[in-house]
Amino acid sequence: MEPRPPGGPAPAEPGPRVLGLCGADPTASASSSSGVGAEAEAGRRAPAVAAVLPAGGCGERMGVPTPKQFCPILERPLISHTLQALERAFWIKDIIVAVTGENMETMKAIIQRYQHKRVSLVEAGVTRHRSIFSGLKALAEDQPDSKLSKPEVVIIHDAVRPFVEEDILLKVATAAKEHGAAGAIRPLVSTVISPSTDGCLDHSLDRARHRASEMPQAFLFDVIYDAYQQCSDYDLDFGTECLQLALKYCHIKAKLVEGSPDLWKVTYKRDLYAAESIIKERVSQQICLVMNTKEDEEHVGYRLEEMLKNELNVHFLDYKLLPFGQKMENLMQIREFAKEVKKRNILLCGLLIYYPQDDQKLQESLRQGATIIAALIKERNPGLIGQLLVA
Amino acid sequence: MEPRPPGGPAPAEPGPRVLGLCGADPTASASSSSGVGAEAEAGRRAPAVAAVLPAGGCGERMGVPTPKQFCPILERPLISHTLQALERAFWIKDIIVAVTGENMETMKAIIQRYQHKRVSLVEAGVTRHRSIFSGLKALAEDQPDSKLSKPEVVIIHDAVRPFVEEDILLKVATAAKEHGAAGAIRPLVSTVISPSTDGCLDHSLDRARHRASEMPQAFLFDVIYDAYQQCSDYDLDFGTECLQLALKYCHIKAKLVEGSPDLWKVTYKRDLYAAESIIKERVSQQICLVMNTKEDEEHVGYRLEEMLKNELNVHFLDYKLLPFGQKMENLMQIREFAKEVKKRNILLCGLLIYYPQDDQKLQESLRQGATIIAALIKERNPGLIGQLLVA
Repeated sequence: MEPRPPGGPAPAEPGPRVLGLCGADPTASASSSSGVGAEAEAGRRAPAVAAVLPAGGCGERMGVPTPKQFCPILERPLISHTLQALERAFWIKDIIVAVTGENMETMKAIIQRYQHKRVSLVEAGVTRHRSIFSGLKALAEDQPDSKLSKPEVVIIHDAVRPFVEEDILLKVATAAKEHGAAGAIRPLVSTVISPSTDGCLDHSLDRARHRASEMPQAFLFDVIYDAYQQCSDYDLDFGTECLQLALKYCHIKAKLVEGSPDLWKVTYKRDLYAAESIIKERVSQQICLVMNTKEDEEHVGYRLEEMLKNELNVHFLDYKLLPFGQKMENLMQIREFAKEVKKRNILLCGLLIYYPQDDQKLQESLRQGATIIAALIKERNPGLIGQLLVA
Repeated sequence: MEPRPPGGPAPAEPGPRVLGLCGADPTASASSSSGVGAEAEAGRRAPAVAAVLPAGGCGERMGVPTPKQFCPILERPLISHTLQALERAFWIKDIIVAVTGENMETMKAIIQRYQHKRVSLVEAGVTRHRSIFSGLKALAEDQPDSKLSKPEVVIIHDAVRPFVEEDILLKVATAAKEHGAAGAIRPLVSTVISPSTDGCLDHSLDRARHRASEMPQAFLFDVIYDAYQQCSDYDLDFGTECLQLALKYCHIKAKLVEGSPDLWKVTYKRDLYAAESIIKERVSQQICLVMNTKEDEEHVGYRLEEMLKNELNVHFLDYKLLPFGQKMENLMQIREFAKEVKKRNILLCGLLIYYPQDDQKLQESLRQGATIIAALIKERNPGLIGQLLVA
């Protein structure tokens, strides 16, 4: 679907905004603000939307020393993948990330290295709710030293849910504007039970009548900020559910929006493995194969393409047409060239395909070539760049 | 811990039993039965334990045409990994797998190909509860044509939870003997909510007071069989929780046993990715590196070993000591030899390490060699066997 800002029937120009810690030149941003006429149409205007991302957790369930939001997936920290996903929704004006003091510098370095825009940092609290509250405070107008402006709608998401799609962000933001609060839900994977104090089953819940509450959630800013300002220390320290705060303190019944399986939270080490495989699979959808065949052997390239296209979306290029053709004459040159292009995140290998006259043997050779290409692409392991493989 | 049968203080000889579809020679089994004296000590005897594995699902949540229990992970179907895990618990006498009629032949082929013992097949019902009931009926004594004997304790597990450890199987079986019913639980990953009929939040559940009910579960056979015989068609068609049936119909409050994160259920495609990575990681714990170094170069092998042992548990062997040494003289021979040993699930590659006099360059060469070895072992991709790589 065509992405558009929530609440308005037609795409609207973004309103003026003050930029956070890592934004671009504020002057440039101000110059792109909409005119007075558009501003007057307040009723039809898209709501200003910000996002808060609590990222203060220590990832104790992961069993690894690095907090899970900073664990690398294909050489990029998990939180950077999540920020990328949020940034694809251009209508989210500001993204507030709450990190602990000790991870502040790490997070600044990530923002700089991966060129994240629209991101501001605040210091996380000791619990998830306290971190979210810090983020909301930074967005509230009454903060004297804040460069941020108060949004109409705020999305709350998790740093460790990297596969959120723009579609669901839009759905929860739109539903929040209408209902005051909204959250993504998923069917339960396991039955939920309630234990008695002696460690035995008290009762089990009807799976059909319950759902897992996932992220993203969205709220009218005034609703959720009001709820956090009212809520008790017990809520801040032991609560887990923002929708519940909106219900308890502002009597807002959140709209529940069915989410996709992609919304799952990276919690255990196995989730890091799964995330890596999903990202690899996405990267591997488009590959480019550079061929060097003599004129009378062009059908070989065509046959290889046929074999591969069931598994991969391959683009074939003719080797002779490319400026770096002469660089790849021997093994050492392939290795040097591979090192050079790796800087641009291109993983290069050479493949020599044995080319016998016998058609059956050629078929076998090509089949093996296709297997090797698929293996290299699927694994995307930088340890193998510059190798000359033989089929 | 040392595996031992549940309920008894010391390891006991397995009692006589009639074998199912795929068991070994019944005579051999009967000859290993315990003597009359041991039989008389009925109170201290280990209970006869069987397992029921419902595997009739179609895996609609996976988004792939193959039912998830038959999806291959490292070239072995998921259910075969699960059966392997159950077979490690030698005290589980029979494993009853419930599969649909259309998958019966597939399942028989899997049992034969991967040499599963102690497995019997029954036809699955249209729901999970009906499949489990079929499995229990096959174990009940009053079935005239059954070759199985009624166990004292029955474990119910899922075909799609391949990482179950013997420890938890033992814990639930032991607890079931004492309490009548027992099940593994895990903390909730997401908050659970209850929606109202208009799709809004009715209330959210306190996460600290609820748990996810996982598998395995275990029951005194008479308890769970009685529950299934009494329960309504509605329970059989819409229920999901065996512990709840034991509570509702037999007033047995199941003992809840804290499980490890390994118990998770392969539900979505991402879970297949995670399972594959976990199995790869386990396989990669032990590798064997065959070296061919001249006498004055032995320190090179030592240095390579040092570099690798942080990541991998490597065993080094000297190439010259091995009978296949002479087979690996050139590339074509490596490829032929790799094809030969792949049949025994050994993935073989050659690695030529450039050996300059300059110590810094040697260090670099070895570092690259270590990177390539780690990459090959981590990925364990059969598409790359027989290649000669260069460091």
